[in-house]
Amino acid sequence: MAEPTNPPPPFDPALDTIDQLRAVGREFHGRGWSLGTSSNYSVVASRAPLELTITVSGKDKSILERDDFVRVDAAGVPCDGSGRKSSAETLLHCLVAQLVPSVGAVLHTHSVWSTILSRADWARGAVRIEGYEMLKGLDGIVTHDTCEEVPIFANAQAMPELAARIRARFLAADWSDPKRPPFHGFLLSGHGLYTWGRDLAEARRQIEIHEFLFEVVARTRSFPAGAVATALTDQPQSGQGATGQGAPVRPALSIDRAQQTSQRQQQ
Amino acid sequence: MAEPTNPPPPFDPALDTIDQLRAVGREFHGRGWSLGTSSNYSVVASRAPLELTITVSGKDKSILERDDFVRVDAAGVPCDGSGRKSSAETLLHCLVAQLVPSVGAVLHTHSVWSTILSRADWARGAVRIEGYEMLKGLDGIVTHDTCEEVPIFANAQAMPELAARIRARFLAADWSDPKRPPFHGFLLSGHGLYTWGRDLAEARRQIEIHEFLFEVVARTRSFPAGAVATALTDQPQSGQGATGQGAPVRPALSIDRAQQTSQRQQQ
Amino acid sequence: MAEPTNPPPPFDPALDTIDQLRAVGREFHGRGWSLGTSSNYSVVASRAPLELTITVSGKDKSILERDDFVRVDAAGVPCDGSGRKSSAETLLHCLVAQLVPSVGAVLHTHSVWSTILSRADWARGAVRIEGYEMLKGLDGIVTHDTCEEVPIFANAQAMPELAARIRARFLAADWSDPKRPPFHGFLLSGHGLYTWGRDLAEARRQIEIHEFLFEVVARTRSFPAGAVATALTDQPQSGQGATGQGAPVRPALSIDRAQQTSQRQQQ
Amino acid sequence: MAEPTNPPPPFDPALDTIDQLRAVGREFHGRGWSLGTSSNYSVVASRAPLELTITVSGKDKSILERDDFVRVDAAGVPCDGSGRKSSAETLLHCLVAQLVPSVGAVLHTHSVWSTILSRADWARGAVRIEGYEMLKGLDGIVTHDTCEEVPIFANAQAMPELAARIRARFLAADWSDPKRPPFHGFLLSGHGLYTWGRDLAEARRQIEIHEFLFEVVARTRSFPAGAVATALTDQPQSGQGATGQGAPVRPALSIDRAQQTSQRQQQ
Repeated sequence: MAEPTNPPPPFDPALDTIDQLRAVGREFHGRGWSLGTSSNYSVVASRAPLELTITVSGKDKSILERDDFVRVDAAGVPCDGSGRKSSAETLLHCLVAQLVPSVGAVLHTHSVWSTILSRADWARGAVRIEGYEMLKGLDGIVTHDTCEEVPIFANAQAMPELAARIRARFLAADWSDPKRPPFHGFLLSGHGLYTWGRDLAEARRQIEIHEFLFEVVARTRSFPAGAVATALTDQPQSGQGATGQGAPVRPALSIDRAQQTSQRQQQ
Repeated sequence: MAEPTNPPPPFDPALDTIDQLRAVGREFHGRGWSLGTSSNYSVVASRAPLELTITVSGKDKSILERDDFVRVDAAGVPCDGSGRKSSAETLLHCLVAQLVPSVGAVLHTHSVWSTILSRADWARGAVRIEGYEMLKGLDGIVTHDTCEEVPIFANAQAMPELAARIRARFLAADWSDPKRPPFHGFLLSGHGLYTWGRDLAEARRQIEIHEFLFEVVARTRSFPAGAVATALTDQPQSGQGATGQGAPVRPALSIDRAQQTSQRQQQ
Repeated sequence: MAEPTNPPPPFDPALDTIDQLRAVGREFHGRGWSLGTSSNYSVVASRAPLELTITVSGKDKSILERDDFVRVDAAGVPCDGSGRKSSAETLLHCLVAQLVPSVGAVLHTHSVWSTILSRADWARGAVRIEGYEMLKGLDGIVTHDTCEEVPIFANAQAMPELAARIRARFLAADWSDPKRPPFHGFLLSGHGLYTWGRDLAEARRQIEIHEFLFEVVARTRSFPAGAVATALTDQPQSGQGATGQGAPVRPALSIDRAQQTSQRQQQ
Repeated sequence: MAEPTNPPPPFDPALDTIDQLRAVGREFHGRGWSLGTSSNYSVVASRAPLELTITVSGKDKSILERDDFVRVDAAGVPCDGSGRKSSAETLLHCLVAQLVPSVGAVLHTHSVWSTILSRADWARGAVRIEGYEMLKGLDGIVTHDTCEEVPIFANAQAMPELAARIRARFLAADWSDPKRPPFHGFLLSGHGLYTWGRDLAEARRQIEIHEFLFEVVARTRSFPAGAVATALTDQPQSGQGATGQGAPVRPALSIDRAQQTSQRQQQ
């Protein structure tokens, strides 16, 4: 798997940024997240004015060349005189970069699991991910004991209309905690995932985390009813005990009974 | 994964075409689509008269040598004097190349998901794929809001009879829209997928797209009943609004209610 | 994936055989079929007397060294004076090589799907695989319209007893057709697969074919009831027509009706 | 896949240990067990006093650098003056190294299957794995005819409290058989797996074995009810016969009836 070995500083449009984006393309194609000519990737090339370097429309992401990128302005209009055309979805990259000032890179992918969940949960408006340690891989989350709702938007080919819906959802969310964004990505139904990061390395990591969690959530649903614990409410209260004596946590089970007995004998 | 870095022009039987076919073999074996000695690949070597360069029968696709190919005429008969034998399925490659004049390459693969779906949906005659953005990876499709029916033919060892059935299906289909073919591949039940493209790169991409969609469709079916949204009819009318105010789309859900409230407050 | 580029002639104990076995180990570990120190691989080093070169017991198959092999006689006893110890299952390799005179290599693997199916179908004594084109990848099978029953034996640690049961099953089977063996491998319940070939390349290919078919069979079972066609009896009679006119095969479906109508109009 | 070619002796803090840990990181990331910045790996650098070399907190395991490790004492406090910070979970690594004196390496991973099973079976306190040959890949297990109960602990962010619960479970278990530990790893619910070994190679192998078994157990559960044999009690008594005559084992099935008949005819 091709990996950037020197993740770029955000907002740096230098030569190696391009090569890192190409490496992301090869990696994501290999992992099944950017097949065909799907997906687009961008980095913030400038903040004042806002400009993005983004993949050219219709390219196979596994074999991106150095000139398969174009610089666009805040409205998604090419501004580097190259005559290259970016994807229609460029507008969504610009939108994310505008709405979240810390963003240095935006990645959009089409995986099997995000496609499946984005359809399966479309009617309820979000994929709910709750109680997993891996959630701590998302920016600002410091405990598994949290719930992430990844918004799902109905897919559309009309980008301004879709962008407006997404913009409204961002504006409606609670961004008051600078350390804990209300969500870290969003889904287009039957289409794929958008996520972002302060730089390309962080955005790539957030793709990875979302994909892991989507796979866990989706595979768990294929289990027959009753096979999966639904409540997480029986968890231990922290501070209840630090030496093991006061620790027993769950309803007494066979292996716990042995444990409790043994502990009593030791006391 | 081995990838052709310079996809060949269609109809060019030059040396590198062979190496690109070998690279496809290594790649498809690695991705589980051409195991054992299954699969055959061809490129159109000449249009007048029609001749194909096709894999020799019974070769392990992961280690194709330069002489594991043979040139055949429109009837599938070897015409290069090499004495090499092509697969019995050569006739199907010739058929596709004859029926679709733009075709430059035909690929036939045996994947797990195409095998499963080609049996599961055989009784209804086609795998139905509807509403996915990835459909846009198929030639001429410009919106997710479409339905692709991938025809399934009962498998057979008697190629002339099978070819006749396939030919009839092609002739019965509506090819009047030069930009939107009625289908982009077909399945043989319990056997595998045929697809094609103007050149090898496009055919390879169409394999990838079909495989992705088959996996999504098949995995979705393993979900318990009711877990997957069935209707896509509630999607937003495009042009309904471009600034977010008029955009709300789905039946009001919790996250949308917050959004609508917030929007009202902003107005 | 490491692949032997020059598959060895059977019965050749030359240096490169060892390197090819090492390559098989790296490949099979990478594909998840030989994890931990599981699996053993052997080639027939001599037929008169029967001697095998087999992997030494307890080695990680992903990093086999040149001295991780030992030569054993027909009873599985080391005969090369190296003092190396082969697996307890050596006896099963010897058994297969004795019972099937054409065998040049025996491979034993532990995959997820073979483990699952060998337990799921243990009570019925065999995994039944029927109607798949990929069956033609098994030695001597020339049509998909066949049924392979892969025998399952209850697992055991006592090799002589297990070998006796396997031997009895081989002797009871019908080997009268030199081109179509009654089976091409067998399973130990909750344990894994044994298969073989005239040389290492063929044995490796038969592993690949069995694994593909096991995955197809197992994944198909996870589908909800009714989703998979059960009968293959409606297949077209070959020779029924070769030009398309007489070809319609299945009960008339929507896409076939269109086809028939269109054909009538063309006639 | 990157693999250590010279597994290190345990307790050797030499330079190459670091490179082997980096190789494990690349490998485990590629296999989906250490995504994002999840996972931590340690080796015992010294036994008197106990000191561990462990991964620095928050690093991407696919691109570990030589200075992404820190030496900690038995309380998990950094003791190499580097100023580097280890993960909060360092305490669990120290705990395992203290409780099991033979331990030379501890590995903690976050895979899809361990996450799923650790939630699905949390209410019963352990994942039960029974009757699989692959269990012999775990240290000291010499027959498939055994049952491994992998303990599951409720996840927590308060490490001292969690460590106390784990410690109590270790102390309550029966470690009297020096060859057969009561368990070989444990799960944190919705979080991941901890396992260990005498050296890094053994710990890596125990990760691999646990992961294989988790996948088998979890996939088997997705099968419809009744598809999987539940009893293993019908297995052959060893020593019952070594030549095949006395071997019949399972309730007579069709393929066995043929076998028995054939055997009688041969006698």
